[in-house]
Amino acid sequence: MTYELYYWPGIQGRGEFVRLALEEAGADYVDVAREEGTAALMRLWEASDLQTPSFAPPFLRHGDQVIGQTANILLYLGDRHGLVPKSSAARSWTHQIQLTIADLVIEAHDVHHPLGGSFYYEDQRQEARRRSEAFRRERIPRFLGWFESILARNPKGDKFLVGARRLTTDLSLFQVVEGLRYAFPTTMKRAEAGCPRVVALRDRIAERPRIAAYLVSDRRLPFNEEGIFRYYPELEEA
Amino acid sequence: MTYELYYWPGIQGRGEFVRLALEEAGADYVDVAREEGTAALMRLWEASDLQTPSFAPPFLRHGDQVIGQTANILLYLGDRHGLVPKSSAARSWTHQIQLTIADLVIEAHDVHHPLGGSFYYEDQRQEARRRSEAFRRERIPRFLGWFESILARNPKGDKFLVGARRLTTDLSLFQVVEGLRYAFPTTMKRAEAGCPRVVALRDRIAERPRIAAYLVSDRRLPFNEEGIFRYYPELEEA
Repeated sequence: MTYELYYWPGIQGRGEFVRLALEEAGADYVDVAREEGTAALMRLWEASDLQTPSFAPPFLRHGDQVIGQTANILLYLGDRHGLVPKSSAARSWTHQIQLTIADLVIEAHDVHHPLGGSFYYEDQRQEARRRSEAFRRERIPRFLGWFESILARNPKGDKFLVGARRLTTDLSLFQVVEGLRYAFPTTMKRAEAGCPRVVALRDRIAERPRIAAYLVSDRRLPFNEEGIFRYYPELEEA
Repeated sequence: MTYELYYWPGIQGRGEFVRLALEEAGADYVDVAREEGTAALMRLWEASDLQTPSFAPPFLRHGDQVIGQTANILLYLGDRHGLVPKSSAARSWTHQIQLTIADLVIEAHDVHHPLGGSFYYEDQRQEARRRSEAFRRERIPRFLGWFESILARNPKGDKFLVGARRLTTDLSLFQVVEGLRYAFPTTMKRAEAGCPRVVALRDRIAERPRIAAYLVSDRRLPFNEEGIFRYYPELEEA
């Protein structure tokens, strides 16, 4: 059964974490708003007879189910495509990591929107500069250090975050590294020296055949200044 | 087996969502840092041999497992105490709501910390004022409207968010309403007129015997200006 992904058509955003899982799974999916326009997204989002309306995109339709919240979608896909462990303890730990990545994504967005989505970036540029400094100095090293320590402690080796197989969390961490590199190239150059396992994981994922094929396809949108990870020179180090 | 909850001792914070679930379940638990001090929390948090270290509290120890991320802890407890549905579709929908509550909690925190946790509130008071206005005008009505519509669409009736029984999500929505009332009393007085089902749900939860007993016990900490929901008159309407 074909998956239908509903997400904004012009950005990687949170939808990208879902796309990477679908691509790695080799799943049959339609990126609805990219193929049929934003109106198709709005139609399902605002359907008054939908019993499980999402607060925000992305959401995934699969048969009768419409599922929202990125980490929740990944849990659903992961169970079906071997991208989440079967044992309940390992599954819970994987989901915990996924939720922490979701927290990081919110912070990465808030760097350029510290006053929230109600104001344009241009109207909160000064505030963004202050938040960005703290994010670069404290938060990026703290998050990357956490991922590094998880890899180091994994009893099955440091190739993947949980166990010995690539899971949704590994694909998502790849995306986080890519996003942070795009938004904060100078910061990342220094930060990556402290987390060699994270960098190696990023490379390992990039080389997986389906991911490699996806990254050079036109299905992979480029990063831009409408998404979560944005490059604003004034928010990067001097 | 006794649950051990690890969370900061002086605030409700995210730990409160876990406490409410433990209390409603009638579960045997220890609120570790409140009973043994913050050092006990730090000891487990920083234990270098812990294979599942949490990025931040709260986390829950149960037997061999240490589980972090509030919504993930609630899924774990919910499965064990009938606070999450058994069917996979209803379980996923419940978790989606729980994750949206987690997003709301982050926004409620960011109102007073728009520049992040690296600065004191006093050093971001002006920024907080701008973010607060947007939060009160746009985000509170939007979130409450979403919960209201979920209740209205629930095919099992509008008593609870999912199905016909109280789940972790209902307990958490109770806490959200309590927190928003504390932080934004004027805003909430007006906003609540638009979401009678949410208010009725809040009352329904408050009257449950175990929750009612908990709320008047000394285990229930009062709201204060160290937690997520803070009352700063300058961030409320004039």
